[in-house]
Amino acid sequence: MTDRSGPITLVAGGAGFIGSHLCQALLDRGATVICLDNLQTSRPVNLRRLERYAEFSFVEADIVNPLPLDILEKTSRIDRIYNLACAASPPQYQADPEHTMLTNVVGTDHLLRLAERAGARFLLSSTSEVYGDPEAHPQREDYRGWVNCTGPRACYDEGKRAAEAMAFDFARMGRAEVRVARIFNTYGPQMHPDDGRVVSNLICQALSGKNITIYGDGTQTRSFCYVSDLVAGLIALMESDPERNEPVNLGNPVEITVNDLLGHVLAMTGTDAKVVYKPLPIDDPRRRRPDISRAEAQLDWRPRVSLEVGLAATCAWFAEELVGGRDCTPEPETLRASVV
Amino acid sequence: MTDRSGPITLVAGGAGFIGSHLCQALLDRGATVICLDNLQTSRPVNLRRLERYAEFSFVEADIVNPLPLDILEKTSRIDRIYNLACAASPPQYQADPEHTMLTNVVGTDHLLRLAERAGARFLLSSTSEVYGDPEAHPQREDYRGWVNCTGPRACYDEGKRAAEAMAFDFARMGRAEVRVARIFNTYGPQMHPDDGRVVSNLICQALSGKNITIYGDGTQTRSFCYVSDLVAGLIALMESDPERNEPVNLGNPVEITVNDLLGHVLAMTGTDAKVVYKPLPIDDPRRRRPDISRAEAQLDWRPRVSLEVGLAATCAWFAEELVGGRDCTPEPETLRASVV
Repeated sequence: MTDRSGPITLVAGGAGFIGSHLCQALLDRGATVICLDNLQTSRPVNLRRLERYAEFSFVEADIVNPLPLDILEKTSRIDRIYNLACAASPPQYQADPEHTMLTNVVGTDHLLRLAERAGARFLLSSTSEVYGDPEAHPQREDYRGWVNCTGPRACYDEGKRAAEAMAFDFARMGRAEVRVARIFNTYGPQMHPDDGRVVSNLICQALSGKNITIYGDGTQTRSFCYVSDLVAGLIALMESDPERNEPVNLGNPVEITVNDLLGHVLAMTGTDAKVVYKPLPIDDPRRRRPDISRAEAQLDWRPRVSLEVGLAATCAWFAEELVGGRDCTPEPETLRASVV
Repeated sequence: MTDRSGPITLVAGGAGFIGSHLCQALLDRGATVICLDNLQTSRPVNLRRLERYAEFSFVEADIVNPLPLDILEKTSRIDRIYNLACAASPPQYQADPEHTMLTNVVGTDHLLRLAERAGARFLLSSTSEVYGDPEAHPQREDYRGWVNCTGPRACYDEGKRAAEAMAFDFARMGRAEVRVARIFNTYGPQMHPDDGRVVSNLICQALSGKNITIYGDGTQTRSFCYVSDLVAGLIALMESDPERNEPVNLGNPVEITVNDLLGHVLAMTGTDAKVVYKPLPIDDPRRRRPDISRAEAQLDWRPRVSLEVGLAATCAWFAEELVGGRDCTPEPETLRASVV
């Protein structure tokens, strides 16, 4: 990083899927960015791409622990803190549920305290999972959710709800200026091939020509937001000055069934792979679609990339990944695990 | 404490209202008890009463911090851990919401890790607040709640939901044997006069002859469990071996309005104090009544003390407190604050 004295944007979780796209967008806007990441679920190639920027630097640390001196010594320069640090796909966040909960609660607390000390604005990446398996549809921000707080998804869902509670407490007490984004399903290039999400699963399985797995009967719905749209929403929210401080849904309100998504993927990849239906995991939501009227009104934001365009770009990227092209080849073990 | 080598029951929050009654009940059953408490909301007189027992000892510490050596060095002897540590009345837990959240999440984590290391059984005192302002009535354990995760009560409600999530994760992963009690409104002697609960508020105000405050129009309902009943339920739950590990409601299912409660208190205290109605606080639940069929089936437990008997005992105790009798006089400043 160049040794300037200007403001710094800290992106916790900046080596992950959304985080690395966010870092790139911030760098493209001229920001000086420090990425803080424990590399738990991120792809090292995401970092290599960012490290080409002079205004980018990386600090390896886990926000569950006290923040490292590399960060603390720059406190006075930090004016924006994005917290995107947490494993977000169920197999990953359920592998160590204690760590998932502590990442959301203790990690968020460490970053909120840094924001307080720095006088920085803090954005929490929360999630549509705070709505659980929703009984209201589409989900508005004032819907309080239908979350099972004792189930295997609770470490993430309740962890994010707890993180939201902490963020708004810091705001209410005047300790830090906070923004809270509730992120719905997001997809795009640089997803981790084996993160267990439906878009990456379907594309990787289709491209590999092996069996394609659908959990449940495929009639459950999701709404998929292309990553560039989501990142634009995060930055718009961070830079907004709303009259009332409330969480804001960010996602694409176009709802499709998992079977329809499969149809798109089959057509785009031209695969003749066989489709296998397996039981739905516990507490898997049946429907998920954001009401984004608050984001439209407050941020003048809405998604611009259609599913067809976004999926095509994502399929193309995964196709290059799978033939081992360029510098973004996934680690071989990782890839093998994902295409079984 | 006598220097035996037998098993130890650890009660975190054991100097509080319910905690001190629990310690006494355990001591009366012959247990060796260590009380761990930060004395944040507890009354020192609760401890003085317990310290008469040879098998009782007290360690002052906050479970948000790493557990003290006084506890850790006895790990191998600890076979039961009750976690009752958290301020539980809204004015108290909202005074430092960050600490409230960390008490529930980090504190519970510290005690769960101790349970794992010790091979001890762990009981979490959760709360009816996990149901928020419930839309289902009465509340069964499978009702997922209606909690505002961004409001001023969230530090407690979401903190407890997060603590439940952690406890069941430890159980699912075979790290510790856990029990989770969802405690509904509880009252009785040794309540803190100024903890802001409706029973203590009404009795103290009635006895002092000053204005009596009702928040809302008094038609909201509560269900009040006498503390001896609640403690019997906690011990029964801890010692139970249920086939399925699930949270268990503990409370009294007899539901009355706050106005009816006021009627009882006015009659018992013979006061002619004036009643003043004030606005309901944000997110205050309108109705609250436990469905205790799970506790009845699994624990053969149900409350035995009627509201008339329990209130009479509580009024008598507060009356002695307020005239400054015995060794359980509240601190003068505390008392003044409560009867304004």
